[in-house]
Amino acid sequence: MHRAELIALIRQRNTMLCVGLDTDLQLIPKHLLQAEDPIFEFNKQIVDATIDYCVAYKPNIAFYEAFGTKGWIALEKTVEYIRSLNKPVFLIADAKRGDIGNTSKMYARTFFEHMDFDAVTVAPYMGEDSVTPFLEYKNKWVIVLGLTSNKGSNDFQMLRSEDQFLYEHVITKTQQWGTPENLMFVIGATHPEKFKEIRSIAKDHFFLVPGVGAQGGDLNQVCANGMNDDFGLLINSTRQIIYASGGEDFAAVAQSQALDVNLQMKQYIR
Amino acid sequence: MHRAELIALIRQRNTMLCVGLDTDLQLIPKHLLQAEDPIFEFNKQIVDATIDYCVAYKPNIAFYEAFGTKGWIALEKTVEYIRSLNKPVFLIADAKRGDIGNTSKMYARTFFEHMDFDAVTVAPYMGEDSVTPFLEYKNKWVIVLGLTSNKGSNDFQMLRSEDQFLYEHVITKTQQWGTPENLMFVIGATHPEKFKEIRSIAKDHFFLVPGVGAQGGDLNQVCANGMNDDFGLLINSTRQIIYASGGEDFAAVAQSQALDVNLQMKQYIR
Repeated sequence: MHRAELIALIRQRNTMLCVGLDTDLQLIPKHLLQAEDPIFEFNKQIVDATIDYCVAYKPNIAFYEAFGTKGWIALEKTVEYIRSLNKPVFLIADAKRGDIGNTSKMYARTFFEHMDFDAVTVAPYMGEDSVTPFLEYKNKWVIVLGLTSNKGSNDFQMLRSEDQFLYEHVITKTQQWGTPENLMFVIGATHPEKFKEIRSIAKDHFFLVPGVGAQGGDLNQVCANGMNDDFGLLINSTRQIIYASGGEDFAAVAQSQALDVNLQMKQYIR
Repeated sequence: MHRAELIALIRQRNTMLCVGLDTDLQLIPKHLLQAEDPIFEFNKQIVDATIDYCVAYKPNIAFYEAFGTKGWIALEKTVEYIRSLNKPVFLIADAKRGDIGNTSKMYARTFFEHMDFDAVTVAPYMGEDSVTPFLEYKNKWVIVLGLTSNKGSNDFQMLRSEDQFLYEHVITKTQQWGTPENLMFVIGATHPEKFKEIRSIAKDHFFLVPGVGAQGGDLNQVCANGMNDDFGLLINSTRQIIYASGGEDFAAVAQSQALDVNLQMKQYIR
């Protein structure tokens, strides 16, 4: 998906919401466990209920890998199902990959050729040759970890070097490799006070923002400080939406939770 | 596998060699493509030919994921096959994972419970809660990326902060989370001049050393500067061994390449 299409989609659906699909057999409603493929069945119903009220989905690949081959099949089926609906939506493989060049190429092939994702999250620790293979695909995106939402983000990302934090070095340096058309950054909502500063060093790039909801990030502060003229944010919510109900009504409740988030976001979208 | 078992194995087999299993359908001998599962067939023959001459195997997970479900099945079969031989060997999932705590837990489950790996490589960028879930398993290991072998290692790992390089911060800080019994570091052979210094800040930890062979690292310098009293090194070689011949003799040639590497290593093992 082009940047222009993504922007148009946000305007059309009136939301910057990305729904996380971290599907865990231990957390999905019990009645689904009798389905032939419970993971896929859960995803399908969540997607059916929310696709008109979000602009992106983000399966975290760990949750699928944990079930081995079965999980992998469920992931492939989920992507195919979403694409079969013929409704534009931005698909993010939250994989946090990053390896030497020839290996990153393999990962790019997995998520961009074998499966039809629009974007992959990538860890920057290994530097340029771990990121650039993902940038060689037209209309595909890399989302580089900048400042993450977890507690451990304080351990290394906040180290200062030459008057910049490590995450600022990452955000600055990677802009030499990609453009606002193919490079986004993960910026956690748990650091709302940092958004203004980060926006000043990455004016046109989209940020994927986890950490709103269950992790405690403040949506209003994130929007107020992080948006740019092209919206510039994809706000992820996972547990607050997909696990809002553990009953047979889970999909309907997920939809109403999505609508709730959108209502909070509405004032920022024009 | 315990640290003591690993040390005994190195002594018994007279080698610190780890064979990389980066199995790529485009690189394996053509005659194998007719097999029912070419990836597994290649791995099986490589393992049969080399297991007595190495102490570890390291499949890079990217190569398996690139083939989707089929690749995943081949990986599971490979691990099961190696374990069925009942010969001790250290199995490393080169996955370079790293995510927020509850996600890292899923990855740990995948590689330690679903499959019987001894160790997983982990990227440190996201800090403590991305590493510690892997440390909760008895006799299992985390191998944290320290100073990697690729060109991109210069981009961020070499940033200086408070008189230390980032990779030194990583090596120092993670030692608060793990011990020499469950924590190793990836240190690339392409930085042989750094080994003495790194050994001085991680005296008892094993280092997994990629970059010997195709990537140009110098085995002698690595051994001379990187070993400790318990050997302390696992030296990885991939392409130089598994792709040494593209013919029907590939397994025999891989074996003789392994023996070659071992010969160079022999003077350091006593």
